[in-house]
Amino acid sequence: MTRSLIQAVEAAIPFAEDLFRRLRERTRDTVGVTRAAYGEGEQIAHELIAEAAGGLDLEIQTDCAGNLYMTWPGETREGHGVIAASHLDSVPRGGNYDGAAGVIAGLVALDALRREGFAPKRDLSVMAIRAEETGWFSVHHIGSRAALGALPPDELDAARRADTGRSLAEHMADLGLDVAALREGRRHLDPSRVTAYYELHIEQGPVLEHEGLPVGIVTGIRGNVRAREGRCIGRYDHAGGTPRKLRRDAVMAVAEYIGALESCWDRIEAEGGDLVLTCGRLFTNPDAHTHTKVPGEVNFSLDARSHSEETLDRMEELIRRHAAEIGGRRSVRIDLGPVTRGAVATMDPRLRSILSDGCRALGIDAMEIPSGGGHDAGDFAGAGVPSAMIFLRNPNGSHNPDEDMKMEDFALGASLLAWALTSTR
Amino acid sequence: MTRSLIQAVEAAIPFAEDLFRRLRERTRDTVGVTRAAYGEGEQIAHELIAEAAGGLDLEIQTDCAGNLYMTWPGETREGHGVIAASHLDSVPRGGNYDGAAGVIAGLVALDALRREGFAPKRDLSVMAIRAEETGWFSVHHIGSRAALGALPPDELDAARRADTGRSLAEHMADLGLDVAALREGRRHLDPSRVTAYYELHIEQGPVLEHEGLPVGIVTGIRGNVRAREGRCIGRYDHAGGTPRKLRRDAVMAVAEYIGALESCWDRIEAEGGDLVLTCGRLFTNPDAHTHTKVPGEVNFSLDARSHSEETLDRMEELIRRHAAEIGGRRSVRIDLGPVTRGAVATMDPRLRSILSDGCRALGIDAMEIPSGGGHDAGDFAGAGVPSAMIFLRNPNGSHNPDEDMKMEDFALGASLLAWALTSTR
Repeated sequence: MTRSLIQAVEAAIPFAEDLFRRLRERTRDTVGVTRAAYGEGEQIAHELIAEAAGGLDLEIQTDCAGNLYMTWPGETREGHGVIAASHLDSVPRGGNYDGAAGVIAGLVALDALRREGFAPKRDLSVMAIRAEETGWFSVHHIGSRAALGALPPDELDAARRADTGRSLAEHMADLGLDVAALREGRRHLDPSRVTAYYELHIEQGPVLEHEGLPVGIVTGIRGNVRAREGRCIGRYDHAGGTPRKLRRDAVMAVAEYIGALESCWDRIEAEGGDLVLTCGRLFTNPDAHTHTKVPGEVNFSLDARSHSEETLDRMEELIRRHAAEIGGRRSVRIDLGPVTRGAVATMDPRLRSILSDGCRALGIDAMEIPSGGGHDAGDFAGAGVPSAMIFLRNPNGSHNPDEDMKMEDFALGASLLAWALTSTR
Repeated sequence: MTRSLIQAVEAAIPFAEDLFRRLRERTRDTVGVTRAAYGEGEQIAHELIAEAAGGLDLEIQTDCAGNLYMTWPGETREGHGVIAASHLDSVPRGGNYDGAAGVIAGLVALDALRREGFAPKRDLSVMAIRAEETGWFSVHHIGSRAALGALPPDELDAARRADTGRSLAEHMADLGLDVAALREGRRHLDPSRVTAYYELHIEQGPVLEHEGLPVGIVTGIRGNVRAREGRCIGRYDHAGGTPRKLRRDAVMAVAEYIGALESCWDRIEAEGGDLVLTCGRLFTNPDAHTHTKVPGEVNFSLDARSHSEETLDRMEELIRRHAAEIGGRRSVRIDLGPVTRGAVATMDPRLRSILSDGCRALGIDAMEIPSGGGHDAGDFAGAGVPSAMIFLRNPNGSHNPDEDMKMEDFALGASLLAWALTSTR
């Protein structure tokens, strides 16, 4: 049925294009789109998607946290069956596809399978997840954690939205959601009763574009070690009159520190390890710095990500050791602030091989690829649900209005997703 | 007369203390003092000093640019004689001694010499110079250059004060100064007719404090190579999803660049060269940076200073070469912006040996020391006037409200200045 499946997906592409167009129009910002988590844009997206799912004759459900489930009932209604999911919120002035592509691909896949006369044994659901983007409430993946019963109730009051200052509970209440049930820890999904979780998402990096491939099969989601609020404290001195031995220069110290950590990255990669390392924010104090003062203070962030918890352990140790060593030698204090860890999520080997088989069967050129960014799939995998991800090529990076996706690539991804939904026992 | 000279200076110290106290009180800011160049605080200082000089029976003169000359006439009135000078403006919320100490030391020295019955052969003048601090008008040493006829007339309109936005000419006109004469290039001092220029100043760095010495004899004023507006342009990318080979990371590039320049500093010092190197401002773009983005842009400043024009030539070449090499290798652009040079000023060997002889004669522990910061003495030396400087120990650095000076050290410096005024033929 592979050829006819592709044709059935292609027949559903105008439906997808229309949905993408309406989503973009209704959540447009000065540039790109803005769909605030538990805000106006996300709510518009949920309503549009629910309406479209109704047109496909799917059962519609919403949980206490506002996640939307659009289900094609199986022969048996036992368990949650197989879920194809992604989120509908976006970063401020982000792109139209980050999140939404996975939800719409799910609808396209179900529509195509129905046209093909497929009869599901178990439920097949498309899930539109709330509040995946971390920027809004400074906590990650609220919707998926709430669905799985993994959202600590205190986050409901502690997490506040960056633009409004109001709490997660208040924003949920605005939308008529059942905050009281969330406080009691009520969950919609029992992880042990989910057969499988698939998430299609645009790639957030440039690898598929660089390799000239439309589709990636995600091997796992990198965990991270982060120091978001690092500081190096030295001493301000006259730039002309202070000899080297009397300086406590924070910039020279941090430059050496970043260089030392980059050398660690070199070494780990040379040994075949998986690592990316980023110092995304670096700044002397704008109220105190001038070009004629030895800098007495530098702020910096560090973000190291890897597939391997061992590599993250090793990097955390190196980040701490070099801070102490370089700080001591240069008479400055390199204070890392809170050092946090995000766990590695491994994608399910059986689901990955289903996706590989699907690529072969459908004639899709694909590669295995790590996910550098976090995704709801990581939370499902962390809860014990067999989970896998399909990446689609994106030439312009994510979290910006230039993010992009070719509809040909989307059609391949939706076909692969449909194939996987029918092949997962 | 050395012992009695020291006693005569000590007798004048209460006068100096009273002047410092009144200066501080009348130009006090929220912290420290503020004496804006051609502004209220500087004008108050000039009036206080002129009044004090009148009490010492000195001749008072003001030139077109508002510099103040307080003269003890010599037997002959030919030429300008010997000048003891410094400036009366301060940085915003700066210290009370940076500049003013040199002017008051001059008055103390003349008072002490008069008490000693000294009869000058040539005029001895204390000069209170306008607008030395570069921060106010973004151009250096306005008063001394104007006195020497070295202020290009276009600066009168082009230079604007940072706090008011108004031009130098407007601020001068506010004080009733003769801007028209300055436009015609009229000068008060003919450099070839100045016998010698001495400037006492607090040290701006920590060397004397570190060495436990009250007095420094300045060997020269370091010149500089500066890139005040350097930028490294890379590309923003997803921190988790962008592999190393596809990154154009501006922070990693600048960290390597600063490290490479620091290694050049190592090498030059190891070879016995004189150099200080500072990256005082360093910052990713606050509107675009986050800890989860590969940084696409870094701004930085560079300031290299040396006694030796050859070393500055070499550093300028290294600054340019490493920018091109590292930028090319890392696929980023390191754009230095305007690279400016400030000339080295050598202090007069004969005057330096007079100061050394004075230290021996007066029992003052002193050392030779380079000046890292610019001073009016550099402009006098550049105009061909034999020039020298006395530094006084300052434990807390300059250009801040904690700047400090012990009155015992000041008395030693004023004694040395008096000794030099009588010893310069």
